[in-house]
Parts: sequence; C-alpha cells; structure tokens
Amino acid sequence: MRIAVDAMGGDYAPHEIIKGVVEELPEHKFEIVLVGQPEAVERELSRYNLDGSRISIFQAEEIIGMGEQPVQAIRRKRNSSIVVGLELVKNGQASAFVSAGSTGAITTAALLTLGKNEWISRPALGIIFNSPSGPVLFLDVGANPDCKPKHLLQFAQMGDIYMRTIFQIPKPRIGLLSNGEEEIKGNKLVRAAYQLLAKSELNFIGNIEGQELPKGKADVVVTDGFTGNVVIKLGEGLAEVFAELSRQGMEDSLLLKEVQRRILDYTALGGALLLGIKGNVIIAHGRSDAKAIRQAIRLAEQVVEQRAAEALGS
Amino acid sequence: MRIAVDAMGGDYAPHEIIKGVVEELPEHKFEIVLVGQPEAVERELSRYNLDGSRISIFQAEEIIGMGEQPVQAIRRKRNSSIVVGLELVKNGQASAFVSAGSTGAITTAALLTLGKNEWISRPALGIIFNSPSGPVLFLDVGANPDCKPKHLLQFAQMGDIYMRTIFQIPKPRIGLLSNGEEEIKGNKLVRAAYQLLAKSELNFIGNIEGQELPKGKADVVVTDGFTGNVVIKLGEGLAEVFAELSRQGMEDSLLLKEVQRRILDYTALGGALLLGIKGNVIIAHGRSDAKAIRQAIRLAEQVVEQRAAEALGS
Repeated sequence: MRIAVDAMGGDYAPHEIIKGVVEELPEHKFEIVLVGQPEAVERELSRYNLDGSRISIFQAEEIIGMGEQPVQAIRRKRNSSIVVGLELVKNGQASAFVSAGSTGAITTAALLTLGKNEWISRPALGIIFNSPSGPVLFLDVGANPDCKPKHLLQFAQMGDIYMRTIFQIPKPRIGLLSNGEEEIKGNKLVRAAYQLLAKSELNFIGNIEGQELPKGKADVVVTDGFTGNVVIKLGEGLAEVFAELSRQGMEDSLLLKEVQRRILDYTALGGALLLGIKGNVIIAHGRSDAKAIRQAIRLAEQVVEQRAAEALGS
Repeated sequence: MRIAVDAMGGDYAPHEIIKGVVEELPEHKFEIVLVGQPEAVERELSRYNLDGSRISIFQAEEIIGMGEQPVQAIRRKRNSSIVVGLELVKNGQASAFVSAGSTGAITTAALLTLGKNEWISRPALGIIFNSPSGPVLFLDVGANPDCKPKHLLQFAQMGDIYMRTIFQIPKPRIGLLSNGEEEIKGNKLVRAAYQLLAKSELNFIGNIEGQELPKGKADVVVTDGFTGNVVIKLGEGLAEVFAELSRQGMEDSLLLKEVQRRILDYTALGGALLLGIKGNVIIAHGRSDAKAIRQAIRLAEQVVEQRAAEALGS
C-alpha cells in the first residue's frame, strides 16, 4: 500500500506534515509519497535519522493557498500538490491521498480528477468520531451548504455503505439531525428527507436531536453541510475554550483529554472522508499538527484496507 | 415587582419548581405568584418553613402536556397554568412569566395572549450564555425552524435592543452564524441575510463560524431556529457526556463546572427569552431542576428591571 500525502497543504506545512509522517511510519508497513516541492521536503526530512526506504518524494512545484477560489486555482495550478497527489491516486500510483489543504480545492480537484460515483448527486464530507457507544459517521460537514432532500438520502446511503465496510456494522442505524424527535419536527428540508429515509431500504431510526449526537444513538447521522459545519466547528471552539481553561491552571489532563476526544473536535479526529468520490481522499484540518496528520494517515490506511470507496460502486 | 411562575410546567413540576422559588426568594424583594393547582402547590409549599407573605397562589386547574399540539391545547385548556400565567402578565398582575412547560405551547399562547411587536414578523427564542469576553445573546434557538433573510435581520435588531438595555452595551457587535468567515460563505439564507445586515444600521461584524461562537467575538449571534436548536442541544448533550465521565471517577468539579458553564448548556442557563412578544416571558428547559428555575427567575427579574420588552416598542 502506498499513501500520497500533500506535504505543502495546511497552516503548518511542510514541517508538521512531515513530522507526522515520520512519526507514524514505523507503526505500519505502507509506503508514503510526499507530494510537494522537493527542496522543502528534503530539508524537513533531513531533520530525521531515516533509512528512507519507505518514503519517497513526488515533485509538485505549485501550492494552492487556503483563500484561493477552488475552480480557478485548480485550472491554473495543474502542478500543485493537490492536483498532482490526486492524479497519483487516479493512476494507481497511490491508494489514498491525504491533504490538510483547502477543503474546497481538494473537493473540486477530486471531482475533476477522480470523478464521482454515478448514483451520487453530490460528494459529501464525513467525519468519524468516538461516542460512548462506538464510532459515528457524521456527514455532510461542509461540502454542500444547500441541500435537497434526495442529497440527504444519498448521504445516508453512502454512510450506510461506509460503516458496513469500515467497521463491519451489519445494519448501521441511520439518524437524521433535527430539532426534535418527532416526525413533524425539522425545517422543510429535514421533514422531506425524513419521508425519503423512512421509505428507503436503510435502517432509519428517525430524528436525532443535538443532545443525542455525541451519545452514539445512531451509527450514521446525516445533515446538510451548513449545519454539519457549524456543529463540528463548535466542537472545535469548545475544545479550544477548555484548553485555555487548562492552561489557566485547571489541570486535569485525563478529563480534558476525554473532553476533547468526545467533543467532535475535528482537529483531534485527524481528517474528514470525502464520500462519493472514486478514490480514497482524506481532508485533514487546515491547522493539522503532526498528531492530526498521524491520525489522518491511519484513517487513510483503514479506508484503503476495507475498500470503502470501492464499496460505493461506480 | 411580581413574577408569575408556572408551578405545573416541566418534567419535575411542581416539586423542583417550587423548591427553586423557595430557595431563590430570600435573595430578592419581588413577590412570586405560583400558577397552578392549589392543592398540589400547597402540598409542596408545606414542606418549607415559610412566612408566605411574598408567595401567593393563583388557581389554574389544567395542565398542558409536553407532547400536546400547541394551538389545540391552548384553545381547549383556557384554564391551564400557561394561559392563566400569561394573562396575569397581560392584565398587569405580574411583570413576567416563567415556565418550564412546552416551548411550543408557551410561544403560541404568548402570541395569542400578549401579542407580538408590530414591526416583528416572528418572535424568536434567545439564550444568553457566558463567553470569556462577556454575555452573548444567541437566537433563534428553536421558535422558527424555517426562516427568511428578513427574519434573521429582525432577530439581529431585537438582539441589539436587548443587549443595549439588559447589559448597557452601547453598540452590540452583531454576528451571523455561518460555515465560513467570508461574505460568500453560507447557505442561501445566510448569504442573503448577510447583505441585509451589511446594509442595516446595526454594528454588523460579519459571519461567525462555529468555533468562534463560544468565544464571544460578537455580543449577539443570529441564526435560524433549526441550526440554533441543534447547537444548544449539542451543548446540552456534551455537558451530559462530561457529567457521565465525572460520575465514572474522573472528578474535577472545578473544571467540570467551567465546562458546563461555557458549553452553551441550556439546562444550566436557566431559561430562554421570548423576544418580540409584548411582555416578559422566560421559557425554562423542560428538565429544569430547582437550580435552573432559580436562574430563570433571576433572568426574569433582570429583564423586568431593565425594561427589555418595553424597549422593543409596540
């Protein structure tokens, strides 16, 4: 297995990206291809005492910045680490691509390079977080701010396939994020999606309210990309507030660690899966440090091994 | 000042409601009118050693349950504690009404009994939470699952008036909850509301992302009632997860208390304000215990003293 990692993407690239790769590699057997500017990558690699047999560099001179307009950036920068990394997946030279670069640019480039599954109208971004009752796949967390009911149905169908293949959950429980448990609750979008989900072949367990989300009542929770994004970023912000409290002397590393682990903190989760794309693409947080990159790489290994993207069909 | 409290509303009524009233009363000079079934209320009051001079009972034999359809329930139960309590405010016999009953029933009854401010299309439900930089008013948290851009503008205008009158903030910073900082981010609703807010007379500081919400970057943060409800209930759920961790032996009451205080936990905040109604109405959480009721009563006193509802005009 070979995983391509965008060495240039993210606020702390290339330093933290390469640190994460170097730290994670000994625990696995796969190879890593670092995609980016060779000089910058070599300079970082020279900090470590490596035999280098399982790390290679693939040249990509350009970098797409976080604020660039995705479509334009991808057209103009064909030799950027994002486009080149995705092409490695397309050509079979890598099994997965991990990047902490611009979510919009990666999603757009993945659509153009790898293409989407035909039965999917819109790829979605999903995170897997730990709940007291096990892993939960939560999507969409930002790819589609405006959704139609059928998009939410498709997110549920993709989530169902992912949770069956990655975690061998036979009949994943599908929940719909809403402002009340009852069928009549929700905004127009959610009320219409409820009807589609109820009629589907899925193991739909109904609406999930905000307070149930962290508890793991469902294995897959679907929402539109606007609400999903607000939810995961709120988790991130709360984790930061707690970290600040901790620095102020209220130290209890064990509790604080649990708090951060449970709080849907995107930064601690390593990365989001791009579902509905013909290929394994992991989008790590822009502020990823080495630890986050290690988790993103582990997630990449897991989806490659379980053939999650292939399970979605063509 | 006289505050009417719904003795029958909420999961732990009348016991916890009356406990909260009895515990809170010595700290203030106002009077409390307990609205509900006299026998039940008297039975609870007899547990305490009271002189009773500042607590009275106002008879309301009926109770509107949490699951009842609001409009039907209000029509059929004219003698319910919710309807009777709101009529006390209407007739000037009480300055505010506090209830932990059904949000839908209270909102509908408040509209029918007290009426809304004429310039407001839709009343909204707002909570005030503590951020590291001060109190933040967050609305709508559930009254309007589907909103139009002009509703969000009006929520901002109401929030502006409330924060000026309750906390004497001269020019409250108004933020719009979104999935990105930039003007182009958001779903269709948010992008359109952004334009209205930017053109308004308000001190609009732009989009607020989820991670910024707990930090207090804005004094008022507006969102639709669907997203707002998911956000506050997520805070509630996370607080429960932490409380469970604490019970499992990871005790650090100081940190945990801070976590709960900072986490937008609706149950800990005491109550939500019903904005846009001609009268002071505080909706406490259905699961309110005595402590939550005490906070709801304190909030009621604050809005009465600062004449917050009057500041909205007619």
